[in-house]
Formats: sequence, structure tokens, C-alpha cells
Amino acid sequence: MEHDLIAWLQRTLPPHPQLRLGVGDDAAVLRIAEQADAVVTTDLLGEGVHFRLTDAAPRQIGHKALAVNLSDLAAMAAQPVAAVIALLLPRTSAGPLARELIEGMLPLAARHHVALAGGDTNTWNGPLVVGVTAIGQTRPHGLWRRDGARPGDRILVTGSLGGSRLGHHLDFEPRVAEALQLAEHYQIHAAIDLSDGLATDLRHVVQASGCGAEVLLQRIPISEAARRLAGPNDPSAALRHALCDGEDFELLLAVAPEVANRIVRQQPLGVPVTDIGCFLDGPPKIWKIDQQGRRTELTESGYQHQANP
Amino acid sequence: MEHDLIAWLQRTLPPHPQLRLGVGDDAAVLRIAEQADAVVTTDLLGEGVHFRLTDAAPRQIGHKALAVNLSDLAAMAAQPVAAVIALLLPRTSAGPLARELIEGMLPLAARHHVALAGGDTNTWNGPLVVGVTAIGQTRPHGLWRRDGARPGDRILVTGSLGGSRLGHHLDFEPRVAEALQLAEHYQIHAAIDLSDGLATDLRHVVQASGCGAEVLLQRIPISEAARRLAGPNDPSAALRHALCDGEDFELLLAVAPEVANRIVRQQPLGVPVTDIGCFLDGPPKIWKIDQQGRRTELTESGYQHQANP
Repeated sequence: MEHDLIAWLQRTLPPHPQLRLGVGDDAAVLRIAEQADAVVTTDLLGEGVHFRLTDAAPRQIGHKALAVNLSDLAAMAAQPVAAVIALLLPRTSAGPLARELIEGMLPLAARHHVALAGGDTNTWNGPLVVGVTAIGQTRPHGLWRRDGARPGDRILVTGSLGGSRLGHHLDFEPRVAEALQLAEHYQIHAAIDLSDGLATDLRHVVQASGCGAEVLLQRIPISEAARRLAGPNDPSAALRHALCDGEDFELLLAVAPEVANRIVRQQPLGVPVTDIGCFLDGPPKIWKIDQQGRRTELTESGYQHQANP
Repeated sequence: MEHDLIAWLQRTLPPHPQLRLGVGDDAAVLRIAEQADAVVTTDLLGEGVHFRLTDAAPRQIGHKALAVNLSDLAAMAAQPVAAVIALLLPRTSAGPLARELIEGMLPLAARHHVALAGGDTNTWNGPLVVGVTAIGQTRPHGLWRRDGARPGDRILVTGSLGGSRLGHHLDFEPRVAEALQLAEHYQIHAAIDLSDGLATDLRHVVQASGCGAEVLLQRIPISEAARRLAGPNDPSAALRHALCDGEDFELLLAVAPEVANRIVRQQPLGVPVTDIGCFLDGPPKIWKIDQQGRRTELTESGYQHQANP
């Protein structure tokens, strides 16, 4: 990292009880809680793929780069501890841009008690690239994985889905607190965060778990943004957005029916939790049931997938 | 990560005693040794900055991307445990390229007992970007930092320096085993790996430690590559390469004189260890002493710094 940036970070970053050595040496040193495992995830955002500098302020890009990683930790019910940052900066604006990117991470890091622990910056002639690796720790209630869904489990999702490109993909709050709260109070069999879209991410769960799934289309919580994108003339478009858009960064959970009922009744989170269907015995296929009760296979290729931004 | 790549990795990657959950979920899960801290470092390599696809095979780039991170862990005397990989791949060759990059990491990972634990891949229209984050653990003999050099300490370097761009920067072996061996048997006050060049990295140590340093120019171990680059007509050019080239990825150590003498006499590593000067009481300046005993301040700006590649 460049000297001025390191000095600014050392002045700016708050101390953290688990950070033994932060920005300024060859590596960061963290204390992981006793009996806990370290949980590590990394994501690389590139200009034109995950954001456009013409649409998004650098602070929003910084927020997103950290948030997508915290969302991955949430999907494992891991508690965030620290993050390291790697930047490839366009030569013309490198210094101010690096600062603004990190300023965009600071409030999110503070809310989730994440130490920004170090990193690497370089300038180049290419587009902006922002890499973040987040390190969390398992909690006593254990780890969520993708491969634990069982036939009969209900499919729960948090929040509402679709239309993320209208802004949510830049300013979403990762479901860290929600995941930790659910993990503490309820037994969850499997989880994933919705980054590729409900249809695709549910497929990841059924493939990992070796079962099928059935989704009740009229139960899918459609976001306002999905409805705005769809417009008034194509009633099925909003549902397509909710199924396929990606970057919702909500949680999808596999939960035994009695526990799912309890969660849906109690609504213990600040965001709604909705039961949208169930896992099935059988091959890793996904079935959709429409308002008329018709049951057909759900294939992503049946929908136009449009990636953000 | 893309499905075929995950499946290939799951077939290819060997098990690792500290890896609880590897490639294929939202995050990787690692067991850090009891009583140890986690040591985390990240580096992002971009085409045209750290390598050129016209000069370097993808396997060499993969090797380098992991090796630079292991070199950072070596500089802390940390034992490598795992690495996660983030790739931005040019659309035209994404699949085969990702595989070759990772194939380039596999032998290095095996030699240093590093679990390749997960990652993230995307395609884009930009140049190739390879990000690696390495996670290590502290050992009972403790951690090396940059800020522990004391006036009177000798300056030791491993190997020989300069001319890395002729090939060393792509195929170097990070000094992990050497660092762990030194840490186990000798008291080391401070350390850094030589990534920016001897002059610059020594400056990092004196600035962090709040002392000065004095380098005996005729003691600096000049590599064959530096001599080849310099050619026969400019006798001082090889020395300049050794002082300023960067990407040597050797270790620079601050060690009490009696310990330094012992190390230099015993030569306990497979590579030579050379005493090139000492740390001084005073401001964070570096002095060079030439063959005639003349003492002048060493300033990097006095040399032409040429970055690799």
C-alpha cells in the first residue's frame, strides 16, 4: 500500500479486540475465538461487471465490495471479524479513489464489528478492480452449509426479491445480524445467500443437498423495484425479475416444517421471512406451481437472465 | 465460481488437515491451531503490471500470485495454512485460463502445505486479474514484524538480489521454510520480504522501527541476473539493480550482532545469508558506504527504478 494511504488508515481505523496487528506490515494478525473455526470468503468486483463508475459513487462501490463478502459469511452463519482489501486503481485518480472506496466500507465495517486489517494497492491502465476477503469465525451454534436441505424441509427467504439493479445491489445491508439471530434460536438445515438469483441459488442448494424442490410462484415476495422494472403491461415480468435477477443478497434457508412455521409466525427479524415452497425427495430438479396449481419444471433458460449492473 | 471449475477443483485438490470445508460453498472453513493467531495477506496481480500474458505462461502467473502471498507470510514467520483465489478472466479464454492458473499454484501449494480453499471467478472485457489471499498461523516462537529493528542490529539478507525481471519474478520460491527455520533457532528482531527492492524495503523497516541504517555496498549479494542486465560496460549498474529492482522476494532481517555472526557462520539455510550492514541510532535515514569507505545518504531517487515486468 502507498504510504499516505497507510498513514491515513492508521489514523482513521478504530481498534478492534481481535486485531493483533493491522495495516502497515506484511500481513495482518487476527485472533480467532477459541473453539471457533475461521471462515474465509473472497470476491473481486470489476468495473463494468459489478458496477459502473458512471452510475455508482466510489463510496457505494466500497460498500458493495465489503457487503457481498459479509453476505457470504451470513450465509454460513459466521460472525464477521476482519477484512483485507486489494485494489487495482486507474492511474489518473488512484489516491482519492482509494480513500473514497474505503470510506464507503467504514460505516458497514463499524456496524458489523469488522476490522479493516490490511491490503494491497496498485495502479494500472485498466478499469477499477476492488477485491475484498472477509474473515469470520464460527459460533457455538454451528455452521450453515448448502448441502443440508432434506426432503420435506420448507424453503424460507428473507426480504423481497428482484430489481436489484435499480439500486439495491449498491446499498444493500448484508443479512449478518439476521443470520446470527436465526442460527441462535432455530435449527436451520441449509442456507445460501441470493447472489445469482432465486432460481439459480436454489438450484445450488438442491444440487449440493441431492434433493428436489417445489416453489409456489404466488408466494414469492416480489420487490417494489421488480414491479417498477416490469411496468404495468407484462404481469409476469415482475415475477421473472424476482426469480432471476440476482444480487438480492437475501438469505434462502432450508428448515424443518415445524421450525419454519414457528419462524414465519414469530417473524423474529426486522425483515419479513416468507415460506415459498419445500424440498422434495428425488432428483435435483426444481418445480414451479402457478396460481392455477399447474406444476412445471423451472429452468433458468426459460427466463431472460440479465446481470447487474 | 463456475460449475465445471468447482467440480474439477473438488476432484483435484488434496485433503488438508486444517480444512473443514473447501471449494463449493459460500465460504471456506479453516481450523487455526490452538494458541495461534491467524495471519492474513492479500495481493492482486494485474496484466501489464505484474506480468504479461505474452511473456508468462498462465501456470507461471498462478505460481507467482500464490508465491507473493506466501512470501508475505514468510516475512512474518507465519506458517501457511490456506489460500483463496479470486479471478477476473478475459471472456475469450476464461475456462482453460482459470484451470491453468490454478494448476500453476498446485505444486507450490503442495510444497508448503497450503489448502486451496475456495474463491470467486468472473469474466469481463478487461485484462486478466489474479487475486490471492493467503491465511497462515503464528508459531510458538512468535511473529516477525517490521518495527522491531534496534540500533546495532545487523542487516541480513537471504539469496542474491536484482534482475528479477529476467525470470526470477515468475518462478521464485517464497522463503517460507527458511523463515520458519530461522524463527525456530534464532532470535530475529524484525523482518520484511524484498518486494519493492532492497533500498525501499529497508526504508520501510527503518521508518517502522524509528532508527537509521548503514549498508556496505560491496557486501550486497548481486545476482547473476543483475549482472546480465547490467552488461560489461557499466560496473555500477549491477549494484543499482540489486538495490532497486524489486521482486527479489528474499528476506531482510534485523538481528543482534552475536546472533547475526552465528547465522552467517553456520549458514543454516539452503540459500546464503549475507550481513550487509547495520541499523543505527538516529533518524530513519539510510547511508551507503562504498568501496573507498565514503559514506553518503542512499536515496532511491538517485537510482532509476524500473518495475517488473
